[in-house]
Amino acid sequence: MSDNETDQTLGAEKGGSNALALGEFDLIARFFAPLSDQAHGLGLTDDAACIKVQDGHELVITVDAIVENVHFLAFASPEDVGFKAVSVNVSDLIAKGAKPLYYLLTFSLSDDFSSDWVAQFAQGLKDAQKRYGCLLVGGDTVRTSGPLTISITMMGETPHGAMVKRSGAKEGDQIFVSGTIGDAVVGLGLCQLNDEMNALRLSDEDKAYFTQRYSAPEPAPRLGTIVREYATAAMDISDGLIGDLEKLCQASGQGADINLPLIPIDPSLKDRITCDSSLFQKLITGGDDYEVLMTVAPHNVEALQQAALKQKIRLTAIGKITDRASGISYYDESGQAVEFKNKSYQHF
Amino acid sequence: MSDNETDQTLGAEKGGSNALALGEFDLIARFFAPLSDQAHGLGLTDDAACIKVQDGHELVITVDAIVENVHFLAFASPEDVGFKAVSVNVSDLIAKGAKPLYYLLTFSLSDDFSSDWVAQFAQGLKDAQKRYGCLLVGGDTVRTSGPLTISITMMGETPHGAMVKRSGAKEGDQIFVSGTIGDAVVGLGLCQLNDEMNALRLSDEDKAYFTQRYSAPEPAPRLGTIVREYATAAMDISDGLIGDLEKLCQASGQGADINLPLIPIDPSLKDRITCDSSLFQKLITGGDDYEVLMTVAPHNVEALQQAALKQKIRLTAIGKITDRASGISYYDESGQAVEFKNKSYQHF
Repeated sequence: MSDNETDQTLGAEKGGSNALALGEFDLIARFFAPLSDQAHGLGLTDDAACIKVQDGHELVITVDAIVENVHFLAFASPEDVGFKAVSVNVSDLIAKGAKPLYYLLTFSLSDDFSSDWVAQFAQGLKDAQKRYGCLLVGGDTVRTSGPLTISITMMGETPHGAMVKRSGAKEGDQIFVSGTIGDAVVGLGLCQLNDEMNALRLSDEDKAYFTQRYSAPEPAPRLGTIVREYATAAMDISDGLIGDLEKLCQASGQGADINLPLIPIDPSLKDRITCDSSLFQKLITGGDDYEVLMTVAPHNVEALQQAALKQKIRLTAIGKITDRASGISYYDESGQAVEFKNKSYQHF
Repeated sequence: MSDNETDQTLGAEKGGSNALALGEFDLIARFFAPLSDQAHGLGLTDDAACIKVQDGHELVITVDAIVENVHFLAFASPEDVGFKAVSVNVSDLIAKGAKPLYYLLTFSLSDDFSSDWVAQFAQGLKDAQKRYGCLLVGGDTVRTSGPLTISITMMGETPHGAMVKRSGAKEGDQIFVSGTIGDAVVGLGLCQLNDEMNALRLSDEDKAYFTQRYSAPEPAPRLGTIVREYATAAMDISDGLIGDLEKLCQASGQGADINLPLIPIDPSLKDRITCDSSLFQKLITGGDDYEVLMTVAPHNVEALQQAALKQKIRLTAIGKITDRASGISYYDESGQAVEFKNKSYQHF
């Protein structure tokens, strides 16, 4: 395929010369090596990176992949795709109480992508590195005939034994979530010109906000310190609040009582919904929140709230952990128990 | 797609029920969780794994992806695909002098794959874990409409400062390679019913050997200790000996003199080729060797050879490092300098 044909087929946002034509070596040297740190011997010039872990610390490591048309839309901005690929991994580390430090990138791309596209994608990675304070230390670039797939392995550090697990929740713990829930579901719906989301008649400003919450989520690294200091259990909310809550309860061997009206929803939506509305159910079961779900012992709740206030982190109590036998119950505005059919978003 | 349709479309080796229909949670619980270690809190039940690094040691980390029809053939046995995905990463760590310990798996699969296929793939991972002494500690399973892609991030350990880089070769160092070179090129050619490889009229036993060298390479972890102890520079040979040698020389800022007839070729091929034959050039520029290229200071050569003998590792001296200004020269049987057109295999 000639460059001209590429331009015609794919339009401006993927235009320019075919990225794969550069070859793996040049592609890395041009776009990815500048994201690594030559001074620390981690300049992507070797087969492996060497990671030093501070004395008294251990490494927390996670991997999350995003796939075109599954986790991001084919027409998404390349900067957003790069930023989101890093953010979804940062989100996992924050929820474990770890500080993000290094990442490795597997970049599977097809002939459809131009050098311009890759340059803008790398800019998204760079923006994310700046925001989160992390560094690219290795990777692999492969050719695929399929959709663009970006897999990132990210490493962070915690003091020995300080990683917060899903499994530590105890009966009586308060359940908190960060930020607002369901923004990304609205954003995705708007990108897809979904009737239900269009019917909300949101302002242009709100539309841009929700779209950004889906396309380029920005988890707050300072929340990681709060999680480490106060949480008995935590996880990031990526497959919908309700489904993820059930995973945390299962891992901890506990039940929970959730007060649905307490779940924090963006003010522009809050007045339009009730607990039994189809939209509300979508907000709390949809994916891509990248907020944190955490449980906190009662004696730590006041200190937690002060720390959150100081750090300008919004944390909202939505219920409490009960014993396993009680199961998980959800209560609406009138205190009635309600059931959900689809509890979790499947990226699958 | 019903199970029956799947069976009819894909034949026995991918037959059985659709793996994605299980959902991500069950897929992990059934096939991948048994490869991890519940006892160490690394049972794939959380968002991240926690890795302790021994005092006085550091972590060496690498990532390598393999793609259907690029790095393995669509009709490859699932056990071999799993085994190879681990092996190519182990190979990188061995070449850095590190001991493989843990890995994370990103598994991108389409509707075409059955539970049976995934079960056999997991068996291949298990066989590799047993051979190399490493453990699955995390991963992500994603749906793709494209070819099966497996990205593995692998971690190993070395004492502080002991990782062997590509960049340490000095003028006068001897250049060694492990094993025999080019076996995988023959194996791939046989799998693809390539005329040149068929014309070799190899015995069935030899054919099976070469095919295995391509489909399920087995780097030797004990070679990692030798690399760490004696090499000034090292890398694994994955993109062809000649291309990889040039990368090592470039990283080290040196040149090299290579004596082509010394390059170790399997005995069943050795008598049929000369340095100027097209087959020989394919063997030394083709990919997928997963052997080690290393440079050793002259005063260490005898100790290296004794260590290799003791460990039953085949190491062959093929030339020596010269100064940068001399460039890289290749000499044939009669001492004549020769040139190569295609120096490196591009998986790309």
